Amino acid sequence: MKNSPTNSPYYAVIFTSERTSTDAGYADMAQAMDALAEKQPGYLGMESARDAMGITVSYWESLEAIQHWKQQSEHLVAQQFGKEKWYQWYKVRICKVEQEYDFSR
Amino acid sequence: MKNSPTNSPYYAVIFTSERTSTDAGYADMAQAMDALAEKQPGYLGMESARDAMGITVSYWESLEAIQHWKQQSEHLVAQQFGKEKWYQWYKVRICKVEQEYDFSR
Repeated sequence: MKNSPTNSPYYAVIFTSERTSTDAGYADMAQAMDALAEKQPGYLGMESARDAMGITVSYWESLEAIQHWKQQSEHLVAQQFGKEKWYQWYKVRICKVEQEYDFSR
Repeated sequence: MKNSPTNSPYYAVIFTSERTSTDAGYADMAQAMDALAEKQPGYLGMESARDAMGITVSYWESLEAIQHWKQQSEHLVAQQFGKEKWYQWYKVRICKVEQEYDFSR
């Protein structure tokens, strides 16, 4: 993700999910939503992994940026398709990042 | 994850990582650490997925519970091995869960 301003708090949206067996249109929509998210104000980055469960974490400058993205019109269409076709279940947690540290060799 | 007490805030630890090509002992240690985490005070649950990147999110009742788990003696050994052998990089974010919602069919 892009570096957030030093010492500024930022937010993480943890999206955990399990897919249905219906793939129709999913990959294209996922790619389109990733590209669209990157263009949103306040977007900082995204990380994603999937095996039996999928976990996508997106990072944002503020709660307002998250709310704006949630209500973006094409994203609303994607959310509706997600509920109708692609997800068995999902859970969204909106979190304030309070501490972070890392390791790299 | 276990249900958290209604309306109580709780915390998420987002652990993102990329593995090295060194597998020696990793699967056994990961399994042991999952089992040990479940026994820690304040543990609420864990979700995990890996493809090119690994994302594990664990949930905790308090920052104190997270700190206690970070300093647990066998976990300290696992962390050391992780840095020496198993992880190319990792990043840890400690977050307060502020809102959540879900969908299930």
